[in-house]
Amino acid sequence: MIFIGEKINGTRSIIKDAIIERNSEYIKSIAVSQAESGADYIDINAGTDPDRETEDLLWLIDMVQSVVDTPICIDSSTPGAIKEAIKKVNKTPMINSINGDPKRLEDFLPFIKEKNCSVIALALDESKSGMPKTVEERLTVLESIFKATRKIGIDDDKIYIDPLIMSVATDQSAGIVAFDCIRQIHEAYPKAHITGGLSNISFGLPNRALINRTFLTLAVAAGMDSAVVNPSNTALIESLYATELLLGRDKFCRKYTVASKNGFTVKK
Amino acid sequence: MIFIGEKINGTRSIIKDAIIERNSEYIKSIAVSQAESGADYIDINAGTDPDRETEDLLWLIDMVQSVVDTPICIDSSTPGAIKEAIKKVNKTPMINSINGDPKRLEDFLPFIKEKNCSVIALALDESKSGMPKTVEERLTVLESIFKATRKIGIDDDKIYIDPLIMSVATDQSAGIVAFDCIRQIHEAYPKAHITGGLSNISFGLPNRALINRTFLTLAVAAGMDSAVVNPSNTALIESLYATELLLGRDKFCRKYTVASKNGFTVKK
Repeated sequence: MIFIGEKINGTRSIIKDAIIERNSEYIKSIAVSQAESGADYIDINAGTDPDRETEDLLWLIDMVQSVVDTPICIDSSTPGAIKEAIKKVNKTPMINSINGDPKRLEDFLPFIKEKNCSVIALALDESKSGMPKTVEERLTVLESIFKATRKIGIDDDKIYIDPLIMSVATDQSAGIVAFDCIRQIHEAYPKAHITGGLSNISFGLPNRALINRTFLTLAVAAGMDSAVVNPSNTALIESLYATELLLGRDKFCRKYTVASKNGFTVKK
Repeated sequence: MIFIGEKINGTRSIIKDAIIERNSEYIKSIAVSQAESGADYIDINAGTDPDRETEDLLWLIDMVQSVVDTPICIDSSTPGAIKEAIKKVNKTPMINSINGDPKRLEDFLPFIKEKNCSVIALALDESKSGMPKTVEERLTVLESIFKATRKIGIDDDKIYIDPLIMSVATDQSAGIVAFDCIRQIHEAYPKAHITGGLSNISFGLPNRALINRTFLTLAVAAGMDSAVVNPSNTALIESLYATELLLGRDKFCRKYTVASKNGFTVKK
């Protein structure tokens, strides 16, 4: 599993405040905690205020890179901000995100290719209205994205597909649509990765962490190999270890046994 | 999910002692706790001592039926003991178990048919040596079992197939073999049920409850619709509620939401 640490996000009020106050110690502590828990990337989102996004993004990157060497996932919808951020990062970053919008693909793909970045691709087309509802709609969007990435020469394994997980509270079939979607995407693009936030699935329901970790088990069995999560969430991590063990991906049960001894505090 | 409460088993030393001491209060308390947690059947196994099995089995049935009206699952390999037990039970029982052994089928099927019992069928043939290793071996045994049950006129939905779950500690592929097996059995015998104990899967490993409940999630997704478990295991029950929610089997999330309010103390 490739974990993208989700916590440094300026749309969360606690992070927004830390950014405005330039509370470097707080940002650094989150970065360290995620790195120690084994995050493969640390997502950095500076919020959506166009007047300050670039400056805040660069400050956040500085803070994170001053304490950890985990690669950054640059989370922005502004090509200008991303281009500045790419100059700043020490390691090849991930970009969060592209989608089927032809304008966005045109803006983003050349520098993603040039810098050899990985990129999260949402299975929606922002230039069209509404979220995709069916598996087929998502696959149609992905077809156009892969057509564009392959044309420019970006390898499939640089693409992290987000199948867009919706809430079971608003649509009872959201879980099975997600699992179907993951299975079909995995079959159609076996070299690409499948990622996404888990928390949408449980939106509006009680005991969300229980739903999220159960979803992860079923999603990993369907072919998901990455997630945008808090890697310090022990209950989630222990579920993941047990899942990989049961799916025959843990030789001699070694990873599970060691992790169990360590209280499941570090993701595999 | 159809839950078969597993706790009253004379091969467990605490139950063996209670049987020998005729500790009726202890047996009754376990029966009540399982019934309150929503067990669909209460398994009763009196141990394997041929000199006292029948007498102990009848005493246990009396104790359980004096406090709850949950149907009994008569757990014995002795036709004589089962026949006596069937006379004693107030409700149509389940029999645990038959297997592909032709002699056992010949002994058991006539009274299973006559009394309209449900029956657990192990995917092994006791008259041959060794446990089946592959999915194919299990399906071959099941073919002979269903040939016999159908011939005598027992409906498929009376059969609870136990696919024989093995430990991932001794065979890394035990989980995926189990899930494959469940999927294929569900496809071949869609009206039959699929059940089994969960604890074998985690034998020899630490944090067994974690592995067991993660296994249940993946097994239910594969088609398992029953389990031999302790229905008072809250962590297992909450996993199950989340699983059924995510598989689109919980209209308006009602069962999950109510169960969550009640602390997941009663299985669905």
